[in-house]
Amino acid sequence: METTKKTIILFSGDLDKALAAFIIANGAAAMGDEVTMFFTFWGLNVLRKTAAPHHQKRFLQGMFGGMMPHGPGQLGLSKMNFGGLGANMMRKVMRQQGVTSLEELIQSARDQGIKLIACSMSMDVLGFQEDELIEGLEFAGVATFLGEADEANVNLFI
Amino acid sequence: METTKKTIILFSGDLDKALAAFIIANGAAAMGDEVTMFFTFWGLNVLRKTAAPHHQKRFLQGMFGGMMPHGPGQLGLSKMNFGGLGANMMRKVMRQQGVTSLEELIQSARDQGIKLIACSMSMDVLGFQEDELIEGLEFAGVATFLGEADEANVNLFI
Amino acid sequence: METTKKTIILFSGDLDKALAAFIIANGAAAMGDEVTMFFTFWGLNVLRKTAAPHHQKRFLQGMFGGMMPHGPGQLGLSKMNFGGLGANMMRKVMRQQGVTSLEELIQSARDQGIKLIACSMSMDVLGFQEDELIEGLEFAGVATFLGEADEANVNLFI
Repeated sequence: METTKKTIILFSGDLDKALAAFIIANGAAAMGDEVTMFFTFWGLNVLRKTAAPHHQKRFLQGMFGGMMPHGPGQLGLSKMNFGGLGANMMRKVMRQQGVTSLEELIQSARDQGIKLIACSMSMDVLGFQEDELIEGLEFAGVATFLGEADEANVNLFI
Repeated sequence: METTKKTIILFSGDLDKALAAFIIANGAAAMGDEVTMFFTFWGLNVLRKTAAPHHQKRFLQGMFGGMMPHGPGQLGLSKMNFGGLGANMMRKVMRQQGVTSLEELIQSARDQGIKLIACSMSMDVLGFQEDELIEGLEFAGVATFLGEADEANVNLFI
Repeated sequence: METTKKTIILFSGDLDKALAAFIIANGAAAMGDEVTMFFTFWGLNVLRKTAAPHHQKRFLQGMFGGMMPHGPGQLGLSKMNFGGLGANMMRKVMRQQGVTSLEELIQSARDQGIKLIACSMSMDVLGFQEDELIEGLEFAGVATFLGEADEANVNLFI
């Protein structure tokens, strides 16, 4: 009855935290673990398409949506971001060191069959439609997350 | 011997993270799980009464206490807060979408019998007296949290 | 087959979050639990020597390294830091209240045999050499963390 399943809630929309989440998730999947990632609040920004279809939105949701990052290429750092300069420095250092980029880690997660769930309540609040996010996601709420977590032996909130 | 008990440490005093913590906690309780929430550091601000009894405090603790949010209605966002404007926008969007407010989630947590523990060491550091926080709390330290966590199958630090 | 082992990922380089991590870790060790702490990204700053040997570094890594805190005495708060003023206030209040300092908690962690692992990939990215960090560390990657987490019953990401 021992499980090695892992769940990760990605609440943060920061580049550094998203990297940590996807490095752990891909590492676990590479070791044969089943992995579920649950994206909520700012974490949904990691899943946004850079060029998404245009939707008519309520004023406040349009404002939030317009100001928040559109996908992994626009994320900032949680510290030392300096208006995006720090994030670009981090991306450059990672290339120099041959470290996998966030975009590649997301693709790898999909290739390895990691389950990616977008929090439907957060989508309602932030005004995201399903077609504004990348393909291959599931859409569900907290009950689904809790069901997954009950089957896992490691659960992280990032 | 399988348990579905959950513990959540709420370290953050941000509106968005407090919402995430209480949504998960209430969701688990609604599914029949035992839930313990442990409030430490900035997370204690979530439990402050808006109008608390006045206490004589040391200078630094008085300063910290005066500047930190007094209860859920004064919390800011971890991102895009813009001096409280972002938090108010978030509250407004949540009302528009019919999403439960933090105040209602806290009440629901109490109604569902979720155990709310305020970290006594953090209270000493931040200079909070028990009557400055809402009713119905327990007061305990890290050993109590660890005892609860050992009985749980999901433990999150938020 | 029940375990009480604990793992903590310290991703944050903030004084308040580092304190939380080390208080939980030391508390668990004092109760007889095996504890592993895994330091990644900004969390590595907690382990830096105040006066470290000088190394020739790439330009961007030298910039990151120069601007980031050199050890526990230079960490800031995640909130209300005000350019370090808040962190110094927090240190002073902790002394007034007789609360153990971060430096003492780190020493206690080593004395209690808590395993301290520095994330080797983060060290590559941030350009840290082993001799820039305090003594007594292990150096490993995400696979090692996951192996430790699989043996634990509580895993926190801070």
